[in-house]
Formats: sequence, C-alpha cells, structure tokens
Amino acid sequence: MRLIGKEEVENIAIGAALLGTGGGGDPYIGKMMAIQAIEKYGPIRLLDITELADDDVVVPSAMMGAPTVMVEKIPSGEEALVSFKALEQVLNKEIKATMPIEAGGVNSLLPLALAARMGLPVVDGDGMGRAFPELQMVTFYLNGVSTTPMVLSDEKGNSMVINTVNGEWAEKIARSATMVMGGSVMNAIYPMTGRQVKDASIYNTLTLEEKIGRTIKEAKAGKRNPVDDVLQMLGGFKLFTGKITDIERQTDGGFVRGTAIIEGLDKNKGEHCYLAFQNENLLAKTDTDVLCMTPDLITVLDTETGLPITTEGLRYGARGTVIGIPADEKWRTQKGIDIAGPRYFGYDYDFTPVETLQAKGGNK
Amino acid sequence: MRLIGKEEVENIAIGAALLGTGGGGDPYIGKMMAIQAIEKYGPIRLLDITELADDDVVVPSAMMGAPTVMVEKIPSGEEALVSFKALEQVLNKEIKATMPIEAGGVNSLLPLALAARMGLPVVDGDGMGRAFPELQMVTFYLNGVSTTPMVLSDEKGNSMVINTVNGEWAEKIARSATMVMGGSVMNAIYPMTGRQVKDASIYNTLTLEEKIGRTIKEAKAGKRNPVDDVLQMLGGFKLFTGKITDIERQTDGGFVRGTAIIEGLDKNKGEHCYLAFQNENLLAKTDTDVLCMTPDLITVLDTETGLPITTEGLRYGARGTVIGIPADEKWRTQKGIDIAGPRYFGYDYDFTPVETLQAKGGNK
Repeated sequence: MRLIGKEEVENIAIGAALLGTGGGGDPYIGKMMAIQAIEKYGPIRLLDITELADDDVVVPSAMMGAPTVMVEKIPSGEEALVSFKALEQVLNKEIKATMPIEAGGVNSLLPLALAARMGLPVVDGDGMGRAFPELQMVTFYLNGVSTTPMVLSDEKGNSMVINTVNGEWAEKIARSATMVMGGSVMNAIYPMTGRQVKDASIYNTLTLEEKIGRTIKEAKAGKRNPVDDVLQMLGGFKLFTGKITDIERQTDGGFVRGTAIIEGLDKNKGEHCYLAFQNENLLAKTDTDVLCMTPDLITVLDTETGLPITTEGLRYGARGTVIGIPADEKWRTQKGIDIAGPRYFGYDYDFTPVETLQAKGGNK
Repeated sequence: MRLIGKEEVENIAIGAALLGTGGGGDPYIGKMMAIQAIEKYGPIRLLDITELADDDVVVPSAMMGAPTVMVEKIPSGEEALVSFKALEQVLNKEIKATMPIEAGGVNSLLPLALAARMGLPVVDGDGMGRAFPELQMVTFYLNGVSTTPMVLSDEKGNSMVINTVNGEWAEKIARSATMVMGGSVMNAIYPMTGRQVKDASIYNTLTLEEKIGRTIKEAKAGKRNPVDDVLQMLGGFKLFTGKITDIERQTDGGFVRGTAIIEGLDKNKGEHCYLAFQNENLLAKTDTDVLCMTPDLITVLDTETGLPITTEGLRYGARGTVIGIPADEKWRTQKGIDIAGPRYFGYDYDFTPVETLQAKGGNK
C-alpha cells in the first residue's frame, strides 16, 4: 500500500491518457476530479493486487459513454456512493476496494476520486491495460468474470442495477440506457473477489501510468525528446510523424466514431497516415501499409511536448507522432482477438502484432 | 376474497379487452396464460382492495412494449419470480400481492398468471381503469406514488432494477431498455403499501371486466345485441358504426402508432370515422365532429358479436361499432388531463367529456 497525492495524480493523468489510446476521456478532467478529492479527503490508498485477500470484494468503477459528453458531466461522487451501496445490497457483502476498468484520462482517475469520497482504497491494476469502447472488452471478461450485477447512475439521481445473461447483453442494455440518461453515466461493474482480481487483471497499471508521466516530464526537464524516452520505456514504436490535416468525427450509438488524416513530415514527408477510431484509436495505416491495429495500442503524442492527444483533442494543424505499443499478452490470444481485434470493429485484417508489421518495413 | 377459475378468466379476458381501448395486448394470449396457470397451480385468489392491511406490500405487474411484439413473447412466469425476489431484496419486505396496472387483454390477465405461479393473491383493481401507453399514466402516479423501484425482466434472463427521480425518467429509461431487450419485457412497478393501493387505485376492475364479459355472452345467448347491453351497463355511447376500409400502423419508439379509417354504415352511411391510436385508441372523429377523446375510453366492438377488437386485430372489411365510455373521475382532473389528455399526445383539442360531445350532436 502506498499513498497517492497530487504529484502522483499529475503523472498518472499523463500516462493514463497515453495508454488510453485516444479515448478514456480528457486527462485534465480526470486530474481535476482526483485532485479535488485529495484536497477534500486526503491522499488515496493504492493497493498492490497481491495485497488483496482472496475473498475481498472489489468493484471497478468507470464512466461509460462518449468522452465528448463525459467532459460536460463530471460525476459528483454521490452517485458512486449510491451505486456502491446498491451493489452491496445485491451482493450482500461489503465492498473493500475499487479499481479502474481501463486506462484513460478520466477512467484511470475517476476511481481515485470516488475512492477518496467513499473512504476506500484503489487497486493498482485494470481490466484492459489500455482503453476500449465496449464493456465486454476487458480481461475480466476474457477470464470468465460476470459483467453483472452492474449499477449505472447519472448526475440527476437515476440509477439502475442490471443483471444479464452475458457481457454482450450488458453492453447493449447499458449503452442504450447511457444514451437515454444523457450520453454518459457512472458505472460500477464486474464485481470480483480478490482471487478473481489476481487472476484476471492487468497488474500495476496506475504505477505504470505514473512512470510514463514522470518519464515525459523528466525528458522535457533534461531537454531530451520525450517521445523517444517513452517508446524506449514501453518497448513501443514510432509509427508516423506529421501534421493533422483532416479530422471527421460523429457521435452515434453512444460512441464517437471518426477518422483523422495526418500529412507526413520529416521522414514521412509525402505520405499520409489514416487513423480510425471508435472512442479509441483502432487502426493506423498509410496508403500502402497497415502500421498498427487493435488490440495493440495506437496513441498520438504531441511531437514537441510528448503529451498524449485524445481523439477529441485532435485539431487541424497540430503536429503529432503516432506511436504503437504491443498489447498485453491476454489480448493477443484467440479469445482476445475475437473480442477486440480488427474484425470485431469491421476492419478486414488478420491481427498482426505491431512488432511484426514494423519488422516488415512499416516503419519507413 | 374469492377464487378465480377458468370461466371467470374467459369473461375477464373479454371485458379486459373492451376496457383496454384497443391496447393492452391480445385477450387470447392473456386468457391462455391465465388458464394454463390455473390448470397447473389451481384457482387464483382475488382480493378486494378493502381486504388489504395498510402495511401490506403490493407490487403491480405488467408487460411493457408494443402489443404486436408481446404476442410473440409470452412470459414464462420465471422472470416474474426473479423480478419479485429482486424487488423484495431492494424493499427489504415480503410482497403480499400483485395487481394489474391497467385493463387490457394481456395486462389484466398476466398478473393472474404470475400470481398463480408465485402463490400470491391478486388485488381486484388497477391503476387506469383502461389501458394507456406510458408508465406514468396511472392513478398511482396521479396520487404521488413513486414509479420506482421497478424491475424489468426479459425471457432470456436479463433483468434490471431501476430507480429514477420521477415517472417520466422511469418511462424513458424503461422504454429504451424494452426496445433493446426485444420489444417487450415483464415489469414489476409502483410498489405500494395497502394504504396507497386503497387511496390511489381504480376499484373492482377485474370484477367489472368479468361482468362485461358475462353481459356480452348472455346477450348473445338471449339473442339480444351485445353492444347495446354493454353500453347500457357501462353508461357508454355508440359513436359510429361502419366497415374498416383502411388501417395504417407502424412500430416505432417501442409503440405501435397508427390510424384506422371506418366507412359508415346504417345511420352513419356516407360518413367516415378516423381512429388514431398509440397502442391504445386515443381519438375518434369524423370529417365534421370529434366523437371522443382520451382519457375517455374508445373501443371498437365487432358489430355482430359485440367482442372487442384490439388495434392489432383491426382488419380491412371488418364491421365495427366504435363506442365511447366516460373515464374514471381521477382522469378528468386537471392533473389527469395534463398526463393523459389529448394535448399530451399531440392532438390540438381541449378535453371534452364524451357525454358533452354526444349531447352536442356527435351521436347522429
């Protein structure tokens, strides 16, 4: 167990946005939520996964919905209290801790803010090691953890406890409720025992996010290129460098879908990179090559500052470096690829690891 | 308390379809559900409202969704058990009885079938005295009873416990969930104390339905016109007699909306009647006169047999008599008209009681 204060939150916010692959919400919002909570309730206890008892009850918490909407509807923490109490009644057990379900600007930090409000610790791990747009796209689900009972709640005071026969039904029902409830809701989901958390989680996600943030800051302080330092630390690849020349996005079905076009600069001069996203970046390609595909991580970093740019932060004229990071091995299994690989999202490619694509010469 | 057997069910089904004003589902389905339940579990106990203790917990049950879909998805009773247990957990109290929320071919009889399955009695009353398309259109709501906690469940095993800040939000969220869950769901809603049931219900609905059914049957047996006998019994009006020449309906937003055109026969020869519905019949007019408007009851009876025809049962060429029945006084208050009057449904008329419209000469 260690305590998380404001400085740690600053770094986590940066790292979370990077692992968030363009989605998971605005890191500024997540940061402000967590900092306000720390100011009011004191530092937050971060538990290592190995510190959990096998029969502890852990309930991940998250915002669900289009990140563009999420920005305008910051949860107060009250709805989380209500949701957790409702879930404790259903489970007939006390909840011992919360944790993030995914890495992302809001969804890595929301559990910290809610935990502070509720007097609970946060578990250092998550269910994706990145962000994904749908509820069943979590390592918990890959490991057979039930998505429900889950609780959705909104800032108006409406809430619902959902029980479904599988994760796809949970996603369908919750997504439709999210839209009716104003486009984004707070979610308490995948209740687990400590044993299940140990078996089914990505470990040390918050610590990794903090390290990413610190690496970027230290590189800047040392006048080194933050992008290079981060890639070295994560074992990632520089896929494309350029200037954003076109960005088209639309909100439908509770998601933000779109494409960004990046015009090459430096050694990518004369080329174009096409970035397809559904909340998160899912596919990066040029006119001739696929550079990286889901479930591997695709993130755009500001070429100069090294800071991650979310899909809603993509602006015409911004200079960005597209990076690719190998996904956790849990995602590269057949089941992981079935659930979150390119074909699930409608891209007609067999999943090929980013390191293979780069070895083939994608990284010109 | 009295026992309801197969013969009572037969009559209730007819009367329920008449009070159902075209909606509330197919009486044949409701009847079969209740009869099967009686065959399996024995006669059903029907409680007079005055027999309830003030602190008894009563939970109305209903199908929600488009009646055309409802027909294809008969609830097994298992989802009702699950829903009632979930609600008992939330309320932390044992449920003593169920009751219909509305009058209608399915929704008057579903509670009988579920009650048999659950070993509970049914309260002889309902929350409309007719059928209406939306959840907040009940006398319970007029009396300030909270719509939630409510439970929706489907035949696949999915369920949700919903808590909302008001009835409009309950309607929005439940309607959207209903659509995602396949177009119709089972609903346990408006949990009440015995005291609230006494204050907020329409009394003796099932007994009235049974009497309507018996009146129609006895008229036929006595070679009298069933329509006349029923109108005399209910204090209703014969609005229009003719032949259905056009029927247009569409399912959208979880409702069946449409219009039927009836070409006049006998003393209505040369005239047309236009019948507008949203699950239920809401407005009947000719080219010159409004004949009857919601919340008053509009039902089409088969001119020959006197049996009610639901909106989904309306067929080209069928001979029908449109009847109008004054709504319960609870609906004719300002609040009742605000919630279920013509303007709520987009018809630009001030509510005028059917007896006033008929006195003006609508009943040519």
